[in-house]
Formats: sequence, structure tokens, C-alpha cells
Amino acid sequence: MTTVIALGGNALVRAGERGTAAEQLANLREACASLAPLLEDPDVVITHGNGPQVGNELVRQERAADEVPPLPLYLAVAQTQAEIGALIETELRPVAGRPVACLLTHVRVDEADPAFAEPTKPVGPFYGEEQAEELTRDRGWQLKSDAGRGFRRVVPSPAPLEIVELGEIQALVAAGTCVIACGGGGIPVVSRNGRLSGIDAVIDKDRASALLARELGANRLVILTDVPALLRGFGTQAEEEVRTLSPREAEDLLPELAEGSMQPKIEASLEFVRATAGEALITSPAALADALAGGAGTRITA
Amino acid sequence: MTTVIALGGNALVRAGERGTAAEQLANLREACASLAPLLEDPDVVITHGNGPQVGNELVRQERAADEVPPLPLYLAVAQTQAEIGALIETELRPVAGRPVACLLTHVRVDEADPAFAEPTKPVGPFYGEEQAEELTRDRGWQLKSDAGRGFRRVVPSPAPLEIVELGEIQALVAAGTCVIACGGGGIPVVSRNGRLSGIDAVIDKDRASALLARELGANRLVILTDVPALLRGFGTQAEEEVRTLSPREAEDLLPELAEGSMQPKIEASLEFVRATAGEALITSPAALADALAGGAGTRITA
Repeated sequence: MTTVIALGGNALVRAGERGTAAEQLANLREACASLAPLLEDPDVVITHGNGPQVGNELVRQERAADEVPPLPLYLAVAQTQAEIGALIETELRPVAGRPVACLLTHVRVDEADPAFAEPTKPVGPFYGEEQAEELTRDRGWQLKSDAGRGFRRVVPSPAPLEIVELGEIQALVAAGTCVIACGGGGIPVVSRNGRLSGIDAVIDKDRASALLARELGANRLVILTDVPALLRGFGTQAEEEVRTLSPREAEDLLPELAEGSMQPKIEASLEFVRATAGEALITSPAALADALAGGAGTRITA
Repeated sequence: MTTVIALGGNALVRAGERGTAAEQLANLREACASLAPLLEDPDVVITHGNGPQVGNELVRQERAADEVPPLPLYLAVAQTQAEIGALIETELRPVAGRPVACLLTHVRVDEADPAFAEPTKPVGPFYGEEQAEELTRDRGWQLKSDAGRGFRRVVPSPAPLEIVELGEIQALVAAGTCVIACGGGGIPVVSRNGRLSGIDAVIDKDRASALLARELGANRLVILTDVPALLRGFGTQAEEEVRTLSPREAEDLLPELAEGSMQPKIEASLEFVRATAGEALITSPAALADALAGGAGTRITA
């Protein structure tokens, strides 16, 4: 029984918080305690988002740019794997009842992915118009105006094709370690002349988690987010939690879901469930125990 | 045959460079090519320093502190493990002829280590006197005046006691992976009430590498630095490269070696050689091939 658990951003940084280490540790202590029932499975791999952390790191890179060279985005993603991995390790070890380790994870994408032709994912700080032009000229960035708040860099969000360190994740799982991997969707790399090169993009962490779960032959993909379940008829009088969905029902629901939020979670779940005999569960850390008993969460299963 | 290779700072950032990703990749391409003869060993673990990188990251943390919360030093160390690990992976893969992966590594130290009573290791940017007083008051930092250049934070450099992820490093090595571990001497942690907690300190990377080599039962510890060999009578007419040293001879030489430079390398080598039947080799990447053939480098062996 192998379970892949994808920790959403709110397991680490909550609304209104700035993302200090102390805040993240306190939030993780709570989130990790809620994972206890899943940690009864022999094989567990944890993935996680990195939105607030990579945002903070990109601000740091820019504010110090006159003094020390900013790193490319793909290395900022790497940095957040270590920041968050170290924090999760600390809080998960007492709960896990087995060793916990974080493996730096690269995820291969295709340079021919249409996402590279049309970057859509905003990252990093806001800039004024003049500065935006300068960044386009000097660094080749694409920036987009963002609802009166200024200009923001947009980067591609290509499809994950291969978990580069899959063999190592498998070796660690086989050795009885609870592995933290694929943080922030993985460090994006492309293959050129037989070499892997980092590339500035961000990979959706739920899609990367689904790919990882599929390649590991996992039985279960658990996506933890800030709501206990998917809502049907959101905002209407008939609003209700969806308890189970067939892949077909999930697909039919996709158009009415929030882009960049519930939509990629359902897409990732669908991809995993269709490719395997496994089930996907979407819920919050607080509702997880109930969800595992069938009384909460949204379960997608064939 | 297990070899632990400790890459020195100049394998990544050279004198006069700022430490851009492009510079580090170019330097690593050269350093990794020189490692080819060592990569014929079945089991190889690579460790590395992080001086310039953690220095840069601490500048970033401070310059953006009004906007985004600075991370504690131990997490900045974690960040550099990922930054450098990702760079090494890219350049080492084509040379290694086997998978390469980077494991986030914590190293346990003792809060009762005398180093905590007297922090000596300067890290991060320089500050003015007023700012230094503020940092002491607000963050409990210790700062020391540094030869007219201002005030700089000093942190403890305690002895490494335990490689927390040793079992995982062994599992990966056994699976045939070339492992990058213990970057920057490891993320320092202390054990409190059965939990590990990050602590602000830096661990000497050569000492951590020697501990790792010992715990792995390595046959060889290769410390790569910016000089081809240890010099006896440095700066005198009788200056000469030292080719081999017994542990006793090495110990006798210690007092005349540069603190914080050649001294910790010899101390780490001594610790490894005395605890095992292995040998330690200190040389530069460029002289490595010659050194392996006995014509360069300094070898310490019982």
C-alpha cells in the first residue's frame, strides 16, 4: 500500500501570515499530526506546494540584486524544496514512526510544450512599468499587467513528463523511509543533447504529484487543501459537498471549477485514477480522519 | 570501495566571481570532468562547501527583511544544499555514468558543545555599529567588529556528531546512485525531548565529510581544494609540497597550518584515518589525476 500525500500551501503558511519559519513549523505541527492515520501505510511519499515560499524567495533575490546575483527561478524552486523539506522533516519525524528524508527532485518537461509559447503563471514581486521594460530587455522576462497592482513576471507551467529521481524515491521507500519529494512541483529541467538543464518554469504540484503517484504504482493519492471537500453549486442555495465521483462525473464537473485552484486538483486526480486502479481523495488536514472513514472529503474512484 | 569526495568552494565559485548560476555551472563542468577517475569506484558520495552561496543568501534575506521574513541561518544552509545540489547534479550526471541525487542532510550537534558559548565563525553581510546593536537587541545575534569593515554576525561552529540521514545515504549508495549529501557541513540540528530542531550554527564541511566517511565505512576521503598539495615551510626558501604524512606527522604539522583553511582539512583527514583503515587525500581538482597516481597531492595514511 503506497500513498502519495500532496500538502497544500495552507499546511505551511495561512492567510494573513508572512511565512516565518516559526509560523510554518507551528502550522506543520498541526498538519503532520493529522497525517497520523495515513502514516500507518507502510509506504508514504509526501509532496508539497511552495507558492508563498518561492514568492518570498523571489522578492529576496530581487531586493539584493545590486549586491549579489539573483538565481534563476528553477534554483529558487530548488531552494524552497530544501526550506520546506527541512521544516517538514522536523515536524513529521515524531509522528512518522520511521525515518523521514527529503530528496531534491527534478521533473522533466518538454521545451516544445505549448506552455512555453504562452507563459501564464505569475511569480515574484510586482514592478512598475519602467522596471518591467528593463527586465524584459535585460533578462528576457515576460511581464503582464496585473489589475492595477503593477507588472508581474509570468512563466510557463508545462506538463510534468518524468520524475528524474524516481529510482531514488523508490529505493528510499523500499528502505522504509517516509520520503519528501517533488516539492513545489519539482525543479523543472529539459533534456538537451543528453544533458538535463534547469529551465525557468513552474510545474503544478498536483500534476507532478499525480505523475509521481502513477510512476510509484501508488494505491492512493491524497490531496490536502484548505477546504474539506469539493463543493457542487458553489455559492448557490443548493451548495453541497461532493462525497464521491466517478472519473466521468469528475470530468463533467471540470468546467465549473476554479482555475488554478480546484480544477488542477481534479485534473490531477483524474489522471491518476484513470491510469491506475487507485483512488484519489481531496480534503483538508482537519477533515482527513473523517474523510478516510468516508464521512468527509471528495473521493474519485473508478 | 567507497569514496567520499569533499568539493571545496573554488569548484563552484572562484576568486573575483559573484557566484551566478552560469559561473557555478561552468566551474562545476570543469571540476566534475576531473572527478572521472574517482567515479570508477562503485560507491561515491559527494559533499561540498557553501561559503559564497550562504553568504549571498544571507545578504538576500537581510535586504528584503522589511518585505518578507528572513529565514533562520539553518534554513539558509538548507537552501544552499538545494541550490548547489541541483547545480552539481546537472554537471555530474553526464560524467558519473550512473544516477546522481542530492539528499537534504541534517547533522546533529550538541547544545553543550563549547562552540555555542563562544561563537567564532563570521557569516553574512557587514553592518554599521547602530545596526549591529539593533540586531543584538532584536534578534539576539552576536556581532563582532571586523578590521574596520564594520560588524559581522558570528555563529558557533560545533563538532558534527551524527549524520541524521545516514541510513538514507547508505540506501541510495546501495542502489547504485552517486549521492550528494552533507552540503555546507549539513543543516545543524540539536535533539530536544526526542525531537530534532534546527539551530543557527555552521558545521565545518571537512569535519562533517570525515564523519560521513567514517560512518559509511569509506576507504577514502578526498578533499578537493584550491591548492594541489599541503606546503611545508610555506613562504620560506625551503617551501615544498608534502606528498605523504603519517597521522603522527600530520598532527605535528597542525600548529603551523592556516586556521580555518588547511588546518581543518588536516584535522578532518586525521580523524578519518585514525578511526578507519582508510586514507585521506588533499589536492586540487586539476591535480587529482596525478595525485591518484602518487605524483601530486598530500596523502595521509596510517
